[in-house]
Amino acid sequence: MIIIGERINGMFKDIAQAVKNKDPKAVHEWAQKQQANGAAYLDINVGPAVPMAERVEAMKWLVEVTQEASDLPLCLDSTNYDAIEAGLKICKRPAMINSVPAEQPKMDRVFPMAKEYGAEVIGLAMNEEGIPKDAESRVALAMELVANADAYEFPIDSLYIDPLVLPCNVGQDHGPEVLKTLQQVKLLSDPAPKTVVGLSNISQGTKDRELINRTFAVMAMACGLDAAIADACDDEFISAVATARILLNMDIYCDSYVDVFRQQNA
Amino acid sequence: MIIIGERINGMFKDIAQAVKNKDPKAVHEWAQKQQANGAAYLDINVGPAVPMAERVEAMKWLVEVTQEASDLPLCLDSTNYDAIEAGLKICKRPAMINSVPAEQPKMDRVFPMAKEYGAEVIGLAMNEEGIPKDAESRVALAMELVANADAYEFPIDSLYIDPLVLPCNVGQDHGPEVLKTLQQVKLLSDPAPKTVVGLSNISQGTKDRELINRTFAVMAMACGLDAAIADACDDEFISAVATARILLNMDIYCDSYVDVFRQQNA
Repeated sequence: MIIIGERINGMFKDIAQAVKNKDPKAVHEWAQKQQANGAAYLDINVGPAVPMAERVEAMKWLVEVTQEASDLPLCLDSTNYDAIEAGLKICKRPAMINSVPAEQPKMDRVFPMAKEYGAEVIGLAMNEEGIPKDAESRVALAMELVANADAYEFPIDSLYIDPLVLPCNVGQDHGPEVLKTLQQVKLLSDPAPKTVVGLSNISQGTKDRELINRTFAVMAMACGLDAAIADACDDEFISAVATARILLNMDIYCDSYVDVFRQQNA
Repeated sequence: MIIIGERINGMFKDIAQAVKNKDPKAVHEWAQKQQANGAAYLDINVGPAVPMAERVEAMKWLVEVTQEASDLPLCLDSTNYDAIEAGLKICKRPAMINSVPAEQPKMDRVFPMAKEYGAEVIGLAMNEEGIPKDAESRVALAMELVANADAYEFPIDSLYIDPLVLPCNVGQDHGPEVLKTLQQVKLLSDPAPKTVVGLSNISQGTKDRELINRTFAVMAMACGLDAAIADACDDEFISAVATARILLNMDIYCDSYVDVFRQQNA
């Protein structure tokens, strides 16, 4: 599983402030810190405080300053596809688009754009009716995303299906359904789409967030999870991920495997 | 997942000494400690130092003194089936037999005995040829165990299949095969057999044993693991198991769910 660093997001106060004042300091710091800790991508979100009309410019600025501090590929996170396209134009490395739901007009916008810029795509297992309750309905929506990607000749293994994780204190019954979805999505096509989750959602509003995050992460890895948008600076999470990679025989065991995991990604 | 406390085992020096000197102190202490921490069963093994001819008497003594300190059901752990039968005769609660491989003479001895005493059985996914390399061969051996249990009219959901965990530093390729086996065993019959692992094996000879143990435990839980013979006194392991139970929607979330998990089992 690879880690997409979640921290350059205007939902966090310091990044919201940075975007507002065009002050790159916090962005530079988080870009470097996340890369040093093992992130493979950096998620980039200007945050909800930026007015819709200013999001294109804000995304361009945030992409630029992030790239000043890190050479990691970026994951452009916005519901404004013009902002995403503006970002894609200046990304130095092929980026990831975060995200598109299984809604026809949005898929018709995103897949051709992703193809044009050589970007990967996160496809959400939801549509106009919201997030389904069970694994079967999530898999059906994943199938719609796969079919649309295929119709646009977008490579299926550059599509990351996000089964959508809900906080375990409000949507506890969704947890096992998400794990089942992760397993079943791998059977949809050959090559199969990849899978991703927004990890921190699972622990929103709970008491011991890090424990819940890292436990769910390795459970999802056992079900085939390929990527997580997550806190790359949570040391115990990184240790758990490195350990799960050993146990899944993805990295070779040595006594210092946690350090090796960090170095490989840094 | 339920925890079978591993600690009353003559592989540990204090228990070997206790068995040798017929001194119940260490046995009493570990019985109480494991129960207080959330063990649902206590594994009982006199250890390899006891001569074969003395194992029946040693097992009887160990069962008796364990039952002085705890009312938990016992998991009688021996390759000597006379010792197991002697233990079964004096167990106050229905016990578990640990273990029988998929070898005909041993299955012919164990399943009738288990039926007579109302005991559960751990069936090992191995035979005269040793431990298979892949999941498919492990599942085939599990099927032999299920078929034999069925032939003896032994209830299938009282059979725990152990896919056999190897240390990740020597048998790293077995890890994913064990996880696959856990998933597939559940499809063998309806009702399905249960599953169990000897958890500490996964980290034998590694540097950070607890991290590896608890990571593998929750990965295996995501694949349907029902029980683990494990260190019930490892607090972080207990926290991880309690968390995985929440995420699998097996216990209801509350902020103090780790404490609740301990209290429920104690």
